[in-house]
Amino acid sequence: MSLRVGVIGGGQLARMMVPAAVNLGIDLRVLAEAEGSPAQLAATAVGDYRDLATVLEFAKTVDVITFDHEHVPEEILRELVSAGHSVHPGPDALRFAQDKLAMRRRLSELGVPVPDWAEVRSEDELAAFLEDHDGHAVLKTARGGYDGKGVRLIRDVGESTDWFRILDEDGRGGSLLVEELVDFRRELAQLVARRPSGETRLWPVVETVQRHGVCSEVFAPAPGTTSRLVDLAASIAVTIAESLDVTGVLAVELFETTDDRLLVNELAMRPHNSGHWSIEGSVTSQFEQHLRAVLDLPLGDTATRAPWTVMVNVLGGPSAGDLTDAYPKALADQPNVKVHNYGKEPRPGRKIGHVTATGDELDEAAFEARSVAALLGSDISIAP
Amino acid sequence: MSLRVGVIGGGQLARMMVPAAVNLGIDLRVLAEAEGSPAQLAATAVGDYRDLATVLEFAKTVDVITFDHEHVPEEILRELVSAGHSVHPGPDALRFAQDKLAMRRRLSELGVPVPDWAEVRSEDELAAFLEDHDGHAVLKTARGGYDGKGVRLIRDVGESTDWFRILDEDGRGGSLLVEELVDFRRELAQLVARRPSGETRLWPVVETVQRHGVCSEVFAPAPGTTSRLVDLAASIAVTIAESLDVTGVLAVELFETTDDRLLVNELAMRPHNSGHWSIEGSVTSQFEQHLRAVLDLPLGDTATRAPWTVMVNVLGGPSAGDLTDAYPKALADQPNVKVHNYGKEPRPGRKIGHVTATGDELDEAAFEARSVAALLGSDISIAP
Repeated sequence: MSLRVGVIGGGQLARMMVPAAVNLGIDLRVLAEAEGSPAQLAATAVGDYRDLATVLEFAKTVDVITFDHEHVPEEILRELVSAGHSVHPGPDALRFAQDKLAMRRRLSELGVPVPDWAEVRSEDELAAFLEDHDGHAVLKTARGGYDGKGVRLIRDVGESTDWFRILDEDGRGGSLLVEELVDFRRELAQLVARRPSGETRLWPVVETVQRHGVCSEVFAPAPGTTSRLVDLAASIAVTIAESLDVTGVLAVELFETTDDRLLVNELAMRPHNSGHWSIEGSVTSQFEQHLRAVLDLPLGDTATRAPWTVMVNVLGGPSAGDLTDAYPKALADQPNVKVHNYGKEPRPGRKIGHVTATGDELDEAAFEARSVAALLGSDISIAP
Repeated sequence: MSLRVGVIGGGQLARMMVPAAVNLGIDLRVLAEAEGSPAQLAATAVGDYRDLATVLEFAKTVDVITFDHEHVPEEILRELVSAGHSVHPGPDALRFAQDKLAMRRRLSELGVPVPDWAEVRSEDELAAFLEDHDGHAVLKTARGGYDGKGVRLIRDVGESTDWFRILDEDGRGGSLLVEELVDFRRELAQLVARRPSGETRLWPVVETVQRHGVCSEVFAPAPGTTSRLVDLAASIAVTIAESLDVTGVLAVELFETTDDRLLVNELAMRPHNSGHWSIEGSVTSQFEQHLRAVLDLPLGDTATRAPWTVMVNVLGGPSAGDLTDAYPKALADQPNVKVHNYGKEPRPGRKIGHVTATGDELDEAAFEARSVAALLGSDISIAP
């Protein structure tokens, strides 16, 4: 009679659901892409999430299906629902996380503030957008992008030629998303969790620091925020979660512009790198909350457990050996920093773990977390 | 190249090591007694811990052996060490947790304060002890006791007849431990972790409340403690850990007497019920610390994460169905209380989980935790 949650995808997000599932006595089952995935401890199946039969077979072993990533094809999600399986978030919500053009269209309809954008089908259409936006813009593929992939800053239409050629060859009349290059002060993220029956709970808005398009550090809560900004971020996230019928955790990535506006950058409908701080920093972590939400259980308190929490990603790792080889030095350096090791092989730029420090002083927590990340061999853990 | 820790025993203590192992990227492997144990997620072997071949086979798959319980026979522990396996805590330490007579003898030699005690081989010897102690005493079997089992309050030698008969039939010249009935104000527990290379770290001393011989509630830190008492508890625990060469977590159960002394009641050389509060209440939980300690990694900070943490055991559980059936009510009642479900079938008096509340006010945290324990069907969660 235990509660069985099935996660499609065996990455670090599925892995970090394991502790929460163990605590709550939830039977977590993972459909992993391959043997030896980060979530291998809970992997009850290995197979291709693009294969309907594989996914349907897996769905029969659980009470609810949720996700480590947003790459499961929409047709498969719809087949799951048709076959009577409980899928959270559902396909009607997920398509706005899968397709950036659909997302921009829907958010614009809702009146949610977004950067200037256009759907472009040709270099001519792109040239027109560039002309209207001081000659620079951000070009994005509608699907498949993450961690800076599928995103390109362009100053000349020529820089888009290869992407348009791929669309032409594909022959399905595809298009690209072009957006204004936002003049932003910093990036923020607002996470919210929502149950199918409607309850929502927000964590405090956080500041995220990206380097080379990859999240590097998160400060929770975002320092120096006005109550106006806090309320605005919360209202944007709740509007999106409710209007799009998102279930589970929704991460809304935001630009704080130099003229004090908030614009929605990206959406993710699953636990998100900008919420890893919540494992130690919040009464209820995003991983526990996601499990509670997709099971339609009452949501947990999202209050912070310390004035400041700083999360620093470990990117790359040691040039030789394993992350654990660095433990004798790294753990001794800062006994209060918590290390999260995703069990992935070190490789330049790869997210293989993260570290978290909490404390009364932001600077101190940031120093401690960066110090441990550096000792663990992280590529870009040094502050700018 | 990952760090592999093998745990003998698949109970809730092994289960609660799983989240810590997942976070740190430690490969935790469990030798469970049976299929479907609380630690089944990490169970890589099922077999009898009293069978040398089974245990030796399991030991070959890990870097260090540790324990969920203290019942592994000493001969087997010594064979493991002889075969070159790393065993923490080792047999020379563990025998003082396995044999209460050996423990009382050793602590007395060390000058650690303990209740008056005697080794008794007959009803006559017991009668003499009773006569010297106002006609009442606590009689204990040297081995095999836990959660009030193997412990008996006696007022008449006749109440010991069955135990002495078992010893006679056994024919190995066994004896019982008799102790004065301590006039105590309350019970405390001092947990300490120690690495093989010597580093020790202490958590704050906590108050434990027992009902019917089973731990019911823990308040961390122990309320109303003087600095003299705090120092004394710490010094007793460190003395024992160092003198007995304990590695991993050591729990020292203490009586605080009505005349302000501390006397050692029992020892446990593993994570302990009195330390479950540390999962949420301390920067480093006893489970993470135990893994770090047995791997001889630097120990983590044991500072508290809130002024007060209250842990309440869930004993028994709902009369029908599963603990999770009570989640809709229990989780909604106190969104800030954390629920730990050991995945065990409810049965009267059985420890099937615990709940933890943290906060600025002790009374409030205690109320919240008791409320959730009661909603989860706990037998004895109501305060006295």
